[in-house]
Parts: sequence; C-alpha cells; structure tokens
Amino acid sequence: MTSPAAALTQVRDRVDYALQAFLGSQRDVLLAAGDELLPGFEAVSGLLAGGKRLRPAFCYWGWRGAGGPDGPAIINAAAALELLHAGALVHDDLMDASDTRRGRPSLHRQFEAYHAGRRWHGSPAAFGTGMAILLGDLLLCWTDAMFHASGLPGGALRRGQPILDLMRTEVFAGQYLDLLGQAAGDGTLESALRVVEYKTTKYTIERPLHLGAALAGVEPGGGLVAAYTGYGLPLGTAFQLRDDILGVFGDPAQTGKPAGDDVREGKHTVLLAIARARATSPQAAVIDRYLGDPLLDAAGTAEVRAAIAGTGAVAECEAMIGRRVTEAVAALAAAPITGEAREALTALAVAATARDG
Amino acid sequence: MTSPAAALTQVRDRVDYALQAFLGSQRDVLLAAGDELLPGFEAVSGLLAGGKRLRPAFCYWGWRGAGGPDGPAIINAAAALELLHAGALVHDDLMDASDTRRGRPSLHRQFEAYHAGRRWHGSPAAFGTGMAILLGDLLLCWTDAMFHASGLPGGALRRGQPILDLMRTEVFAGQYLDLLGQAAGDGTLESALRVVEYKTTKYTIERPLHLGAALAGVEPGGGLVAAYTGYGLPLGTAFQLRDDILGVFGDPAQTGKPAGDDVREGKHTVLLAIARARATSPQAAVIDRYLGDPLLDAAGTAEVRAAIAGTGAVAECEAMIGRRVTEAVAALAAAPITGEAREALTALAVAATARDG
Repeated sequence: MTSPAAALTQVRDRVDYALQAFLGSQRDVLLAAGDELLPGFEAVSGLLAGGKRLRPAFCYWGWRGAGGPDGPAIINAAAALELLHAGALVHDDLMDASDTRRGRPSLHRQFEAYHAGRRWHGSPAAFGTGMAILLGDLLLCWTDAMFHASGLPGGALRRGQPILDLMRTEVFAGQYLDLLGQAAGDGTLESALRVVEYKTTKYTIERPLHLGAALAGVEPGGGLVAAYTGYGLPLGTAFQLRDDILGVFGDPAQTGKPAGDDVREGKHTVLLAIARARATSPQAAVIDRYLGDPLLDAAGTAEVRAAIAGTGAVAECEAMIGRRVTEAVAALAAAPITGEAREALTALAVAATARDG
Repeated sequence: MTSPAAALTQVRDRVDYALQAFLGSQRDVLLAAGDELLPGFEAVSGLLAGGKRLRPAFCYWGWRGAGGPDGPAIINAAAALELLHAGALVHDDLMDASDTRRGRPSLHRQFEAYHAGRRWHGSPAAFGTGMAILLGDLLLCWTDAMFHASGLPGGALRRGQPILDLMRTEVFAGQYLDLLGQAAGDGTLESALRVVEYKTTKYTIERPLHLGAALAGVEPGGGLVAAYTGYGLPLGTAFQLRDDILGVFGDPAQTGKPAGDDVREGKHTVLLAIARARATSPQAAVIDRYLGDPLLDAAGTAEVRAAIAGTGAVAECEAMIGRRVTEAVAALAAAPITGEAREALTALAVAATARDG
C-alpha cells in the first residue's frame, strides 16, 4: 500500500524539479528586459519553492488512472497548475491583506518592505500592491507557457485546454462569490458551501483529475469522468473543512499562516457557519466580537477557539470530513481506473484531509 | 489606397463581433456558478465594448502579410489579444489609481461605488480592488480560452503559443520596470525608452505581427520576421510618443481619460523626460510642482502644458514621431509581404500615430 505521505511526496518531488527547470528557462527571458527584474523573479521562485503540489498530484493521477503512461511530459503539464495556483495565492493574499504565506511574508508585504527600506518615492504599500498584481499576473500567464511546452502531444493539449479554461473560470467565479459573500453574504451554510464548491472543490480536485483524464484521451461524459467527480466533490469539501479547522485551530509552524487567521480576516467558512448556527447567545457574542477584527491577539484567539469548539462545530466538521472521505474512496471502488491509481488516490484522500498544515 | 481610418475599422468590426460571440459563450459558464456573477460579467463586457483593437489588427495583418488566408479563425485568434489587453488595463488602472477608462469609471471604481451604494460590510475601496483583481485575472485567462478555440489548426496554435507567451512575459516585465521607475527611476530618456520598448512597442506592434506570422507558418529568424521588427519597433515608439502627448494635451472627450492625467499620475514618460532635459529653471520648477500631484486642476494643467510646450519637447516628440513612422513604412518596402498587407500596414502606421484618442 502507498502511504498517504508517500502519495504526496512521490509526485511532489518530480513537480518541484519540473518547476525549477521551467523557472530557469523564464529567468533569462525576464532578465533580458533588465537586471532589475531579479528581485521579482526571486520572489516568485521563493513562493514556488513551497506548497503541497496537490493540484498537480490529482492531475497526474487523473492521467495515470486513465491509463496514461508515466513520464516527464505529464509531470510538466500537471506542474503548470502550480503556477496558476501561485498566481491566485499572490492575488488572494493581496485581497485579504494577508501578511504571511507559506511561512514567509506575502509578496505584497515583501515589496512594501523593499520599497520602505530604500526610502523610494511614493507609498511603499502602493508599490507592494503593484508588484503583487504584476507578479501574480505573470504566474497566471506562465501556466499556459508551461502547459504548452510540457512535451505532451498536440492532440492531448487540445483535449485538455477546455478543462484548464473551465477550471480557471470556475475558480475566479468562486473567489468572486467569496468576496461578495464577505461584503453582503447571508452567512448561511448553503452560501459557504457554494463558495467551497467553486473556489476549492472543483479547482483543487475534480478539475485537475478531469484535466489528467482529458489529456490521456478520455472523452467527457464517460464513467471515468463521473467516477472522478464522485471522488472529487466529497473529497474537495472534506479538504476545505480541514482548511477551515486549521484556519482557526492550526499551528502557525505547520500552516505557515498566523494563528486564528480566518477569524481575524472574517472569512465566511463552513466551520464558522456551523458554529454560528449551533451557538448559544454567549458563544455567538464571542464569535461576533472577534470575527473580522484585524487586531485579534493570542488571548482573543484562545477565547474564540473555546467558543467555537464549545458549539460542537469542530466535532461536526470532523464527522463531515470522515463521511466525505469514505464517500470519496468508495467512488473509486467501482471506477474504471488502474489499480495503482486507485491505491494512490485513496492515499491522497487521506493525505489531503488528515494534514496539519 | 486603404485610408488610415478604414485600415482600423475593417478589422475592428470583425474583432468586435468575435468578442461578442466569445463573451456570449462565457456568460453561461460564469452564471452557472450563480446569478451574482452578472454584474462582473457586465462590467467586463462594457470595458470590452471599447478600444481601437490595434493589437488584433497587427496580428491579423501579420498573418495576411505572410500569406495566411482571410477567415473567421484568424480574427478569433487575433481578438484574443484584446482580452489580454483588457485584463492588463484593469490591473493597470488599479495600480495607477485611475478613475476613468474608455470614458467610463475604471472597474475598481465601478465596484467601489456598487458596494458604497448598497452599504455593505467592509471597505468599498477594498471591495473594488478585489473585484478588479479578479476580473482582470479572468480576462487574462480568457485570452488562452479564446485563442485555442479560435478554429485555427493545432499546428498553427502550437507555433503561435511561444510568441504569445513571450509577449505576455515582456509586457509584465515592462510594467514592472515602469513601476520601479516611478519609485526609484532616474527620470532619464534612456530609462523611459526601455519601459516603452517592453510595455508598448513589443507588446502593441512587434509581437502581434510576429504572432500572426508564426500562426501562418513563418519560421523565426527569416526576412519577414525581421521586416516586422523593422516596422514594429520604430512604429511602437511613435505610438507611445503620441500617447505621451495625448496624456498631457489630449481632449478628454477623445481620450476617455481626464485632461493632464499623465502629469497628475507622475508618469515617467518620454515626453516628460525630454521636457525636463530641455527645461529652463522656471519651466522645471512648474513641471516639478505639478508632476504627481493628485489634486492637479484645470488651471494647473494649463500651466504645466504651457511649461512643457515652452521647452520645445512637444515639437521634438512630433519630429521623432514623423521620423519613426517614415522608418517603419520604409521597412515595409522591401518586406516579403503581400501588397494588400503592405498597404494596410502603411495605413495602420498613420492611424496608430495620428490619432486624437
């Protein structure tokens, strides 16, 4: 049996290598415009050095499950999803005014400090914002460069392109609904789950699997694509529920984000929707007091953690995670995929939902 | 002879139609995630309704000049560049804190007002920023969706992809150098020209022509590609110099931007670099007083216009434009292109540099 840890690291190490090679090729293109591009290149390289490579792993196993042969080309194509993800994270951190990502300052904070340290003209914050917008854009556009230079045959890329396009439109739709929900949302579980469906579930698991299958020549509408949906949708929700729990209760050393960050940022997560629905009046008062408070400190974090846990919402989320992982793994049982892929995807389901960070 | 106006409108009307059809196809994909996506869709549709379609025109004539046949597929592929450009404009306006684009409020201002009018939670400005980041991202990603669904054969798209990738990396490199120049630049003509080369010249003219040629099967390194560079580089600089003049002296009814906007935003343009190099002390004092002043009003605009014109910088820029257009057109004379393309590109050179807005 593949262990959950091995299921992640096997693909991750190869994706890391592919990303390094791609970055090497782009370094020269960027620096041709001027040596001043180097800090920008180094910032995106630093960001890309981290990450669990979940989306590439699901794309890779979506391909292998459909009978696609192992080799560097599918790793390159799958690794391109990591560039899309990094670009989305840079822009997400900017929108959320997050200070930290993967244990380092977020890109806009890095360039804000860079500007401030040099006493340049204008506002350091505006400079940081501009750099994060541009470097995020660059990462998004690099997705296609790496995907199309992957070495996969033209016919495979042509079949994959519409899935990649759909995946991007869906994730931006999910982020849009999330932003709208934070401004004008009803805070219900239903709204939170719809954001999760678009922003996380489809984007992280279902579409990467579908992309791998399409690249391998599987037509839409068949049993394999349906099986990947049957696995991906419950697993994606379970993945996000784990993220929700880590966003309140996670250890910063593991998550790379400050403690209680989701509370501080006032995120409308499923965990918080359940907590609010179950809360007694005193518990609700504590949650409402701290939710969206940018000055939330360690004492406040401890208090809001106790209130949320006291509602039973964490236990309910853990039970939901367990049921959905079981459902996801069951969908693999009858799926027309290779035995090796079934084993790896089973291990990945555990790795994606039992993690600490 | 093709008139300059006709050279623009012939391709523009077909590009408009192609963009409408593409937007229609994406509307359903977006609204599948929720009806709440409609205002975002309408905002990008409104932005895409305007524009001179210069980049698609150069891509189209790059293809036709290389002997590519007319038809809807090349129009679709060329129109995809307008999605890239619209995405870059949305993010550019956000970075520059511009209020206006194509005669309408910029996207971040539209959504700021949308939020403020509904008295939602949080900051209207942060909501506007988030929406502009997301909708710009969506437009950037749609570039590839439209390009690959253009109907051009797979072999053509494979040849074009590296040029499209290079074009995007170059334009972001140019924007990065521009942002850096505004924070820490030396204000010299040399620095301003390098930003122009990457942010405008290659992006607006040279690479769209190269993309059209690559799609039509022309190998890099041949005489046609060199001729397009010989035409594109001087013309791109002339195009930007016209933009620089309009950015200080343009009529808002024609440019769709407020009067004197480049001065208000403290842009390091070639026109301003020349003006500063030529200025007497009193002229330099006027320019320095207003450059980057967000409160620049009509009286200040008139004063700074007089100071810049008084240096002779406008006349020098006009002479530079004239020389570069002549150089661009001369590069076409010996180019191995069709007569129809030579005539259209000659007319486009005039249309791109003699415009009022």
